[in-house]
Amino acid sequence: MCRWLAYRGSEVLLSRVLYTPVLSMIDQSLRSRLGAETTNGDGFGVGWYGAGPVPGVFRSVEPAWNNENLRELAGHIRSPLFFTHVRAAIGSPVQQSNCHPFRHDRWLFMHNGYIDGFAAIKRDMILAVDESLFPQISGTTDTEALFYLALTFGLADDPPEAVARAIGFVEARGRSRGVQYPFQGTIATTDGESLWVFRYSSEGKSRSLFFTRDVRTLRQEYPDRDVLREVSDDARLVVSEPIGDLPGAWVEMPEASYGVFGKGGEQLLSFAPKPPPKAPQ
Amino acid sequence: MCRWLAYRGSEVLLSRVLYTPVLSMIDQSLRSRLGAETTNGDGFGVGWYGAGPVPGVFRSVEPAWNNENLRELAGHIRSPLFFTHVRAAIGSPVQQSNCHPFRHDRWLFMHNGYIDGFAAIKRDMILAVDESLFPQISGTTDTEALFYLALTFGLADDPPEAVARAIGFVEARGRSRGVQYPFQGTIATTDGESLWVFRYSSEGKSRSLFFTRDVRTLRQEYPDRDVLREVSDDARLVVSEPIGDLPGAWVEMPEASYGVFGKGGEQLLSFAPKPPPKAPQ
Amino acid sequence: MCRWLAYRGSEVLLSRVLYTPVLSMIDQSLRSRLGAETTNGDGFGVGWYGAGPVPGVFRSVEPAWNNENLRELAGHIRSPLFFTHVRAAIGSPVQQSNCHPFRHDRWLFMHNGYIDGFAAIKRDMILAVDESLFPQISGTTDTEALFYLALTFGLADDPPEAVARAIGFVEARGRSRGVQYPFQGTIATTDGESLWVFRYSSEGKSRSLFFTRDVRTLRQEYPDRDVLREVSDDARLVVSEPIGDLPGAWVEMPEASYGVFGKGGEQLLSFAPKPPPKAPQ
Amino acid sequence: MCRWLAYRGSEVLLSRVLYTPVLSMIDQSLRSRLGAETTNGDGFGVGWYGAGPVPGVFRSVEPAWNNENLRELAGHIRSPLFFTHVRAAIGSPVQQSNCHPFRHDRWLFMHNGYIDGFAAIKRDMILAVDESLFPQISGTTDTEALFYLALTFGLADDPPEAVARAIGFVEARGRSRGVQYPFQGTIATTDGESLWVFRYSSEGKSRSLFFTRDVRTLRQEYPDRDVLREVSDDARLVVSEPIGDLPGAWVEMPEASYGVFGKGGEQLLSFAPKPPPKAPQ
Repeated sequence: MCRWLAYRGSEVLLSRVLYTPVLSMIDQSLRSRLGAETTNGDGFGVGWYGAGPVPGVFRSVEPAWNNENLRELAGHIRSPLFFTHVRAAIGSPVQQSNCHPFRHDRWLFMHNGYIDGFAAIKRDMILAVDESLFPQISGTTDTEALFYLALTFGLADDPPEAVARAIGFVEARGRSRGVQYPFQGTIATTDGESLWVFRYSSEGKSRSLFFTRDVRTLRQEYPDRDVLREVSDDARLVVSEPIGDLPGAWVEMPEASYGVFGKGGEQLLSFAPKPPPKAPQ
Repeated sequence: MCRWLAYRGSEVLLSRVLYTPVLSMIDQSLRSRLGAETTNGDGFGVGWYGAGPVPGVFRSVEPAWNNENLRELAGHIRSPLFFTHVRAAIGSPVQQSNCHPFRHDRWLFMHNGYIDGFAAIKRDMILAVDESLFPQISGTTDTEALFYLALTFGLADDPPEAVARAIGFVEARGRSRGVQYPFQGTIATTDGESLWVFRYSSEGKSRSLFFTRDVRTLRQEYPDRDVLREVSDDARLVVSEPIGDLPGAWVEMPEASYGVFGKGGEQLLSFAPKPPPKAPQ
Repeated sequence: MCRWLAYRGSEVLLSRVLYTPVLSMIDQSLRSRLGAETTNGDGFGVGWYGAGPVPGVFRSVEPAWNNENLRELAGHIRSPLFFTHVRAAIGSPVQQSNCHPFRHDRWLFMHNGYIDGFAAIKRDMILAVDESLFPQISGTTDTEALFYLALTFGLADDPPEAVARAIGFVEARGRSRGVQYPFQGTIATTDGESLWVFRYSSEGKSRSLFFTRDVRTLRQEYPDRDVLREVSDDARLVVSEPIGDLPGAWVEMPEASYGVFGKGGEQLLSFAPKPPPKAPQ
Repeated sequence: MCRWLAYRGSEVLLSRVLYTPVLSMIDQSLRSRLGAETTNGDGFGVGWYGAGPVPGVFRSVEPAWNNENLRELAGHIRSPLFFTHVRAAIGSPVQQSNCHPFRHDRWLFMHNGYIDGFAAIKRDMILAVDESLFPQISGTTDTEALFYLALTFGLADDPPEAVARAIGFVEARGRSRGVQYPFQGTIATTDGESLWVFRYSSEGKSRSLFFTRDVRTLRQEYPDRDVLREVSDDARLVVSEPIGDLPGAWVEMPEASYGVFGKGGEQLLSFAPKPPPKAPQ
């Protein structure tokens, strides 16, 4: 299991969100409160948009909390849209290519949770990935396989549809192998413009997911917090669990829902996987 | 491309073969003479038999020449059969799970060379791997895919047959995708008892491979070399290129051949891939 | 802060002590109960005696719990005397040369605790190190500086005396800089024959330290534990905090004490630092 | 030995200088032509000015040529002044704190070469470092010790004077220990505004150092090179050895000289170490 954070708003220095005591993602890597594992020390990743449409990605197998390079980068990179992820490995090797976020072209994708019975259905998933995309899979995680499945199902055109089909595929194949609850987790994905976040589990007891309340409201409640004055009115943080010391700043995503944060506004909708058209033979 | 070494004989301290000036594999990682690349700095691995039938494996993405842990281990581990490999990555990520030797149960497998057009045929190869073996693939190299293909084709029962079928499969699929010379390289594999080594390339211009001449003869030629008195009469080193300063100690493996070094004696035979029974549909 | 373990007895496979559920040091790296920090994820080290008088040392900056190489080594190395250490860095960089145990010639040394005000007195400590030893300091930790101070003060001849003088030096210099409680911690050191362990802090509230009760007694209480039948009657584990599920197996070292476990028998004595002969000018 | 590059001019994307075939520093890490060692695979570092007066530093012990994070950063960071360094370790451990460039406050410092007899005079050097600076030394290299010596001798006020005194100190102490040629190498240092580069060796046979000719001239000679149109008229690259395929673009620094590239213009002057006022007692 893992912890992740997605930011979308006006350009900020990454360190303002990753390291300042008000909102410290990095502290959380060492001491998570809501997670299934309290320590997320099996690598981390940052993906950010800046120069050009393709995001930069910085990933490492070291724990985030003692990584000096991460601190340096966060202190020098400004971005209007970025993901960070800290990993607690379950099963897959701890290696850079298994660290989130995953990138394909201009897309980023990250996940907190797991596919139950992944070893049993991995082959089916890999086979269902578009042949032209297949060679680009570079790690061995369930998340990356899910990402490529979603890409195959049209992530670039309709993210909620593609994610629903990918999870639907996972559930169908998992159940055909006797797995009761094949999917668990929260997902974030972005094309550099809009941000989509999902909370869903086959069991109906999903990993937690929170987003920040309206920045204008927060500024009134916390007038002394500089970071709130730095960011734009439409800035949003979405996180696996509330971070920092801003009680009342966080809204929990409902079970089985997804949110879109984009230029055209924001939406919070219900989410349901889409099973494959025919049952697997 | 890469460099590898396989030792089979009486128990020796690994450092005697990896670090002593007479036979230094590690120096070669920095300055290869015969290789396509002169520097093999993209990770290394050691596999050795000792406690129990399953070999130990120590792998790292750091260059072998500056790895202190490798030096420590080599100075403390004695083994009658071990593999070492230094890697110059071409294409695949530099990560621990991509370092040779690969291990499955009691088997080790390593390779110097490449599968041309691997991206195009990787999916076919992966699909041909036995479903029960598939989840154990943990990296992304052509070599590991070839190893699992060979396991699928019966490596544990008949190594030369299985390797011939695996390379035959690669050639058939590669050629069907328009690749002229799909396979290139040398391979070593072992079950902890016998050692099989292969030299073959579709083009007929294979990477070099050498083994040591009879130890008794070598002792006469080099009476002052302690290491030759330490090892048993049947000890053999097989290497990608001659190492150390023992001119005359090395015999080159012929093009398209394989060798077996086992308890029942030694054999040097010709090698030819076995194409799949039917052409791929 | 950190956690450590020292074993002395008959030869055992390291994995029996590091990984088996009964006595799992590695689990403890992830979830310490008594430590000031619960997570010890900033590197680890193993030092063991085997081939020759100089011990092997394997150290890494990765967390111990996900290190595959450690698992491999522990499964293949047998030793009658070994140290393991998991680190939670406080101040010093997370780098291999800062991982315990430290080695000099045939000696190993490790520490759980800290020197308060180390930055202020480091220069004094380094200056007091024998000039011939000075160039061998390769890291930047307080522990390594203390080790070289103890070596300077005759560790090889009289370990308790040398450690008492080293800590006495630290206390004198620290106090002259206004530090109330300069030293805190537990120490283990060995020459490959005997094992010395220390528990002391300037404040009189030292980090915990435990050793196993007599093996014969333990075998009677836990007749089903195989590991107890494998080891010799004189085997001892000394640990920062009790590990595994053997309640009643552990004896706490008293405050301000040290123990010797050697061929000539065992002793538990009181410990007091020895201040330098003259106050620092 | 090592290879380094310093850039000062208008803001450019780091990847334009580190990776494009015209000017590829990274290729050089694998295949140096003029260096004493052809492979510089023992770590690398990048220091750059951007957000605020204190530069960012990204360092790693992996070879530069296969480091994906370096490639990501270089593709997303723009800077008007940056250093890169690839290392071939000689003696000091391969660890992040030993990778150049070194940073103190707003200063960066890097070096290609060595202090002969460093083990013998390291203690003298460390002792001569200002007590307030001493605790900030975090690695074990000769270069970092030289940097702190230069800081002690007033680097922030008069870099050429401070470097002359630091090297003078090294020569005096080295010679008093019987070392014939104590210093060898080239140095770059900057405060984020001006760039100082030095070429000097006690023997009078210094490592090579080159800087680019006037950009306006280069544009005329190489009208098809985009990178030359991107950078400002006053842009300069200073490198250990010519990189890329621009014959005629490079001017060699004379033996025993230093250059200043700053807002107030450029100067090339002769360099001589300044011995300490009194001989060491």
